[in-house]
Parts: sequence; C-alpha cells; structure tokens
Amino acid sequence: MSSGGPDSITIQSITREADIGLGTFYNYFKNRDEVIDAVIIEEVETLGNRLDHLTEGMTDAAEIYSFSLRHLMNTAVSDPVWGWMVVRLGIAQQGLLSQLGPRAARDLQFGVDTGRFQITNIAIATDMTFGSLLAVMRNYLKSDRRVNPSNPYAENLLRMVGLSPKEAAEIANRPLPKLPD
Amino acid sequence: MSSGGPDSITIQSITREADIGLGTFYNYFKNRDEVIDAVIIEEVETLGNRLDHLTEGMTDAAEIYSFSLRHLMNTAVSDPVWGWMVVRLGIAQQGLLSQLGPRAARDLQFGVDTGRFQITNIAIATDMTFGSLLAVMRNYLKSDRRVNPSNPYAENLLRMVGLSPKEAAEIANRPLPKLPD
Repeated sequence: MSSGGPDSITIQSITREADIGLGTFYNYFKNRDEVIDAVIIEEVETLGNRLDHLTEGMTDAAEIYSFSLRHLMNTAVSDPVWGWMVVRLGIAQQGLLSQLGPRAARDLQFGVDTGRFQITNIAIATDMTFGSLLAVMRNYLKSDRRVNPSNPYAENLLRMVGLSPKEAAEIANRPLPKLPD
Repeated sequence: MSSGGPDSITIQSITREADIGLGTFYNYFKNRDEVIDAVIIEEVETLGNRLDHLTEGMTDAAEIYSFSLRHLMNTAVSDPVWGWMVVRLGIAQQGLLSQLGPRAARDLQFGVDTGRFQITNIAIATDMTFGSLLAVMRNYLKSDRRVNPSNPYAENLLRMVGLSPKEAAEIANRPLPKLPD
C-alpha cells in the first residue's frame, strides 16, 4: 500500500504477501475495499490511542484540542499515502468518525465543562472538526505540498470553539510535543 | 431523481424520459454518474447565483457569510434528495468547490478587507467552510432530522472567522431573508 498506493492492491497481492489461500481471504473479507478499510480503521485507532497518551495529563482543553488536530493533520503531511487513503475512501463517514469522533467529543466537552470553550452543540462541532480536517487534508495532498496547513487549521478551529483570535494564534503555534509510540 | 433517489436512475430511464437514443446519450456523457454530476453542478450553480442576488447590496461581510451558509444548509434540510446527492457523490471535491468555492473566497476576502474577519489564509478557511458543511449535512440527513443545524453551523463558522461568541450568536440567529428565484 505504501509503495504502490491503494490502487496497486489486489486480492491476489494480499494473499500472496500473506501466504494464505483465496478461500481464507474470503472467510474474513468480502472484497478488496473491506481490507483497506480495516487497515485504515486500525491505523486511525492506533493514532487515537497515541493522542490519548500524549494529552493524558494535560489540563488545558484548548491545548489538548490544538495538539490533537495538528498531529492528525501532520500524519497526512508526513505520510501522504495514509492521508490519501483516509480522504479517498470516504473514511470520514466511517473510521475517522467512529474511532476519533468520540474522542473529539470528549475533548470538546472537557473544554465546555472547564469554561474554556463556548459551543452549544458538541455533535455539530465534532462533525465540523472532521469535515474540515478532510477538506483541508485533501486540498493539501492535491497541492504542491509546500505549506503545512496544520497550524492554521488548528487556529481556525480554536476560534470556532470560542477562543479569541489572539489566543487561538498563540496556542496553535506552540511547540508541538512528539507523539508517544 | 427526486422520486426514486439517485440509485433509481439508469441510462435507460434517462433516454426514455428524454426520448433520445442511447447513441445520443453517449455523445454527451460517458456514464450515468456523469449525468448526475452535471445535474448537481447545475443546481449548485443556480443556488450560487441566487445567493449572489440575495447578498448583492449587503455591506456586512458577517451577515453575507452567515445568510449564505444558512441557505446552503437549509437547501439540504428542505430538499433531502438534493442534500444526499451533494453528500454522496463526493461533489465536495468537484461541483461544490468549483461553483461555490470562488464565491466563498470572495466573501471571506471581503470580510478581511473590511476588517470584519481575522483569517490569514482564505483558501484554508474556504476548504473548512465546505468540508464542515458536508459533514454536518451528512449527519443531519442520517439523523431523525428534527433539529435544523443551519444556525449553529453558521454560528460556529462566524466564530471561526474571528467574531466574538456573542456577536456570532446574534448574527447567526437573525431572521433569514428569502432567496430570490
């Protein structure tokens, strides 16, 4: 997948690499796209776990939200194949929202509870977080990829949840701590 | 399309309704999806023109942006088939952005020029406007459809472009003028 892109994958190439028979393949998956979806969902889940570890001890909801958003976008920047798969397979509607949606909702709720965010509808803010993630990711991947959109993306969303433009800019541009393995 | 949904459309049903031959069909379109795309792009363009007429004389960028966003979302609320087609056909990546993207960029630039908006990157803000539109639209259509998300959607985006939470709430809930025909 990372060498030839998602289109290079065939059921034959999977069974050959995994050294299993076609029958075994069809015991688990209906078609090629189901495998790819499963891979992406697993990768997104792993990323979600790493973000959880990163932000575990943090107390400022704005910082938690900003760091998570920037790492999400950066994953597509540093691994465009991953980015394309997330964008192309419309995983927005499935994996991304199912694995990361509840985490984002939790972080947004924490911001509301601590008086940091001013949103009245967590579900709509969650949808907007991921819908805009995918749109920005897609156009980054289609572009010449010279400008990493992570910080302006996070800055815009920090304003969306109610921070002042000045504070949003400051927080979105803080040094980004590394993701734990 | 409006009676049976996009899946009910076949090339045969189109040529029968339009009373043309298959050969004529293939002179203009490669396949079924190309026709549906063309219909949606035309409808989106019409909507864009109506929004242009509505906001033509207005001087407050925040009001222009808010009215346009609410009408866009309301179109899916009042015509779910239209909404589903826009969402399902991934028109985000094509028609919506090609027809409405430049209009949104123009309105956002007007907000920056008049000191009303505080965004540094118009392209990213445009992507986020439409990416979040599609995500909210999709989840509205999938839901029980009891709560129209238009106003909270516009309110969130008004904050995103830099308005204070108080002003964003006020503007997003102003009476919405009707779209001209």
